[in-house]
Amino acid sequence: MQRAAALVRRGCGPRTPSSWGRSQSSAAAEASAVLKVRPERSRRERILTLESMNPQVKAVEYAVRGPIVLKAGEIELELQRGIKKPFTEVIRANIGDAQAMGQQPITFLRQVMALCTYPNLLDSPSFPEDAKKRARRILQACGGNSLGSYSASQGVNCIREDVAAYITRRDGGVPADPDNIYLTTGASDGISTILKILVSGGGKSRTGVMIPIPQYPLYSAVISELDAIQVNYYLDEENCWALNVNELRRAVQEAKDHCDPKVLCIINPGNPTGQVQSRKCIEDVIHFAWEEKLFLLADEVYQDNVYSPDCRFHSFKKVLYEMGPEYSSNVELASFHSTSKGYMGECGYRGGYMEVINLHPEIKGQLVKLLSVRLCPPVSGQAAMDIVVNPPVAGEESFEQFSRESVLGNLAKKAKLTEDLFNQVPGIHCNPLQGAMYAFPRIFIPAKAVEAAQAHQMAPDMFYCMKLLEETGICVVPGSGFGQREGTYHFRMTILPPVEKLKTVLQKVKDFHINFLEKYA
Amino acid sequence: MQRAAALVRRGCGPRTPSSWGRSQSSAAAEASAVLKVRPERSRRERILTLESMNPQVKAVEYAVRGPIVLKAGEIELELQRGIKKPFTEVIRANIGDAQAMGQQPITFLRQVMALCTYPNLLDSPSFPEDAKKRARRILQACGGNSLGSYSASQGVNCIREDVAAYITRRDGGVPADPDNIYLTTGASDGISTILKILVSGGGKSRTGVMIPIPQYPLYSAVISELDAIQVNYYLDEENCWALNVNELRRAVQEAKDHCDPKVLCIINPGNPTGQVQSRKCIEDVIHFAWEEKLFLLADEVYQDNVYSPDCRFHSFKKVLYEMGPEYSSNVELASFHSTSKGYMGECGYRGGYMEVINLHPEIKGQLVKLLSVRLCPPVSGQAAMDIVVNPPVAGEESFEQFSRESVLGNLAKKAKLTEDLFNQVPGIHCNPLQGAMYAFPRIFIPAKAVEAAQAHQMAPDMFYCMKLLEETGICVVPGSGFGQREGTYHFRMTILPPVEKLKTVLQKVKDFHINFLEKYA
Repeated sequence: MQRAAALVRRGCGPRTPSSWGRSQSSAAAEASAVLKVRPERSRRERILTLESMNPQVKAVEYAVRGPIVLKAGEIELELQRGIKKPFTEVIRANIGDAQAMGQQPITFLRQVMALCTYPNLLDSPSFPEDAKKRARRILQACGGNSLGSYSASQGVNCIREDVAAYITRRDGGVPADPDNIYLTTGASDGISTILKILVSGGGKSRTGVMIPIPQYPLYSAVISELDAIQVNYYLDEENCWALNVNELRRAVQEAKDHCDPKVLCIINPGNPTGQVQSRKCIEDVIHFAWEEKLFLLADEVYQDNVYSPDCRFHSFKKVLYEMGPEYSSNVELASFHSTSKGYMGECGYRGGYMEVINLHPEIKGQLVKLLSVRLCPPVSGQAAMDIVVNPPVAGEESFEQFSRESVLGNLAKKAKLTEDLFNQVPGIHCNPLQGAMYAFPRIFIPAKAVEAAQAHQMAPDMFYCMKLLEETGICVVPGSGFGQREGTYHFRMTILPPVEKLKTVLQKVKDFHINFLEKYA
Repeated sequence: MQRAAALVRRGCGPRTPSSWGRSQSSAAAEASAVLKVRPERSRRERILTLESMNPQVKAVEYAVRGPIVLKAGEIELELQRGIKKPFTEVIRANIGDAQAMGQQPITFLRQVMALCTYPNLLDSPSFPEDAKKRARRILQACGGNSLGSYSASQGVNCIREDVAAYITRRDGGVPADPDNIYLTTGASDGISTILKILVSGGGKSRTGVMIPIPQYPLYSAVISELDAIQVNYYLDEENCWALNVNELRRAVQEAKDHCDPKVLCIINPGNPTGQVQSRKCIEDVIHFAWEEKLFLLADEVYQDNVYSPDCRFHSFKKVLYEMGPEYSSNVELASFHSTSKGYMGECGYRGGYMEVINLHPEIKGQLVKLLSVRLCPPVSGQAAMDIVVNPPVAGEESFEQFSRESVLGNLAKKAKLTEDLFNQVPGIHCNPLQGAMYAFPRIFIPAKAVEAAQAHQMAPDMFYCMKLLEETGICVVPGSGFGQREGTYHFRMTILPPVEKLKTVLQKVKDFHINFLEKYA
């Protein structure tokens, strides 16, 4: 092949300050000209196309930020351009993002983070001593006493110690070992890392990963990326979305025909379903995992978000230990937590941790090796995780103004409000929101609407949610993005908007739904 | 299988404040007792073992944090415990971590970050106006005006705009489109994401990824994780580690027998080799990629780290545009940058960006979908990236004390010092350190030492580096971790320690090397 003649050659002299300035140079003008005459006809076939790309990545779906959310972005731009709509703002109830919904950051957490970021502030009298103490402890454990150094791949030592101490307190004294704690880039990173290590085999011996339906779509996405086999078990909607071990048994038996089920994923409190597992249920699950030799993944990021007075959070770790040595010495468990949920809602910092139990020492080495390829989780996120597990305690200066109970109490009220209001709407049924931060109501979609959806080549619940967005500006995620029993339809909506706004949102959904039923009657 | 009888049942009453306290409850004591009688004999075979794990992950190697670094950690613990060594501290010259080596963070960057973290500080008179202006701009673009909200998966809009403006200035006006900018969790994340999308096919049509040897081992690790085919091309050590297109041709031709070479990775300035590619070389590479239909990955994280007066950094993007429309409309390119290197050295924040050129619009959609599964890069890292590309300019309050030139001038001195001192040692040859932040000297290892290494089942350069660590406390990475021509040996050492410490380190390496040659003569 002959070298194209059109190579534009330029002087390669030393870099002058002006070439780094903000003014457009003549080279720029020339390059712009090149761009304008870019001959589209001559474009060759691209190397990277939908046909040539990684088919496992192509198969990934992630509805929480899917087509509905793209449409919401378009509508926002239209509103900004002054295009008239039946509403004045888009309400993004698609994602559990507390601070985007107006929740204020916890002052103490941000003070510690600011002190760590800019240690000159340690001399400032406007920061409380307890925040300075936390900041000094973190900085002393960082390379060069700076958040700007890489940490150990497993995370900063003293933060892993604080996480272990938190778990021990949380679990009424069941010991946690800092060596079993891995700090992560949000819980998502931990979950995908451990799944990446777990998946192996080909054909009928390919690893099967059991996930609840409905599920949080990180699971199906990672399973697809890894070309693992997704094994669905259905939560029992008639029974407040409880997990039933007989259903686990059915699912694993059927799966054995075509894969090697090796992993069982649990989300407790449930996302999107909000159920909180009873202690009995957790014991049953652990026994089942022991019996079937399944590696347990316990996604416990909503461990602080329990609202129903009849429910409390039991960690898989604690129940495992209390079931005795046959279980506590054998069942392999990884559990996950995050800075993003709870009452602090620090999603943007991407902090998280994973605790592993009964992991083979050689696998721990493999895990550190794999994590080291990405060097370390963001150190600022690690610091945020430290404050989430190590908040001010009674007697400390910042304890008085610390607002854990008010944030969680407020969420509990909104959970009840949402359940009650949805259940007043004909054609909507909503289970109690025992925990987490979402409603996942079941919606009746009339046959004519199902036909209309098919005509638009859309799932019926996607059609419903798209209409809801277009008519009210409310952005929720169709149930099909999480999985649901065939012929049933749902959507997921966060309960995070402030109470008055949430009431307006619920009223709008009600009006929309009644109107929708009439229109497609 | 019968249910184990030993289930310890416990009261499931409402959570009391004391169960969250720090004191050990009776449940704890009981659980500890359970732990102590843990019957090791009854341990079942684990589910996740070296045999059952993902073989691609098992095959991953990452020497920058490998066995030498684990050993360094052990030695540090021994020193802490008071065990006598021929040295008093371990010097971690294995990794490019400026702040861990004592480099102070850039004040302006940390001021902006602190303001973003704790916006109450916006009212403080002790922060300069230009820092406040940057912080306000970033916060206004964040959900809920907070670093604690998720950002768009592609990154905060205004930061992508600032990155595009930076690239345009850097490239003398060649336009950059914010829509082509993806903010990432460090450059490593961007590189592995784009590779993940690119890899496909089976057997002889599996994607081949061309990488330089020596390489930065992220590449070989990700290739292994993805089960892609690594295609080595060798840099020319005799010619200052230059890239020679004839070697690319050899490599691609040989690779076509067993895979489908589809991606060409370039590291410029080189890591670990420190060479800076000439403009002519870059043109040749682009032409080769065009000719062979290869997707170009340009790892340009050391773009600010150029020291040799005869060299300057040319971006692949700029050269591509200046080569005319046949190239600029067709060659698919992704280039990467990071907050970790340059003169700011903010490794811990895990900030980075990727710019893509000629990516198919459908693939851009796929990329956003894939990124959205992990929600977003850390927002604090995105903010750090904003300051790296948008530092104070002349006329702004903070410009005077801004220390870009002093940091880079200092690194240039250390680069020259390192080259000169290494080349005074018999049996060590070091190419000029034109850029980046490492020396990669070639070391002569006598036959007797090679035999001794074999007796320890170690690569000869691993044996050498392990001895260096044990005798001097200096931690460097063996060349075998990066790849090198058979029979040649090297190590990688950062030049980041402060000048006086660097001189000591180099003197110690010299003494060790002379001693090593004598011992194994």
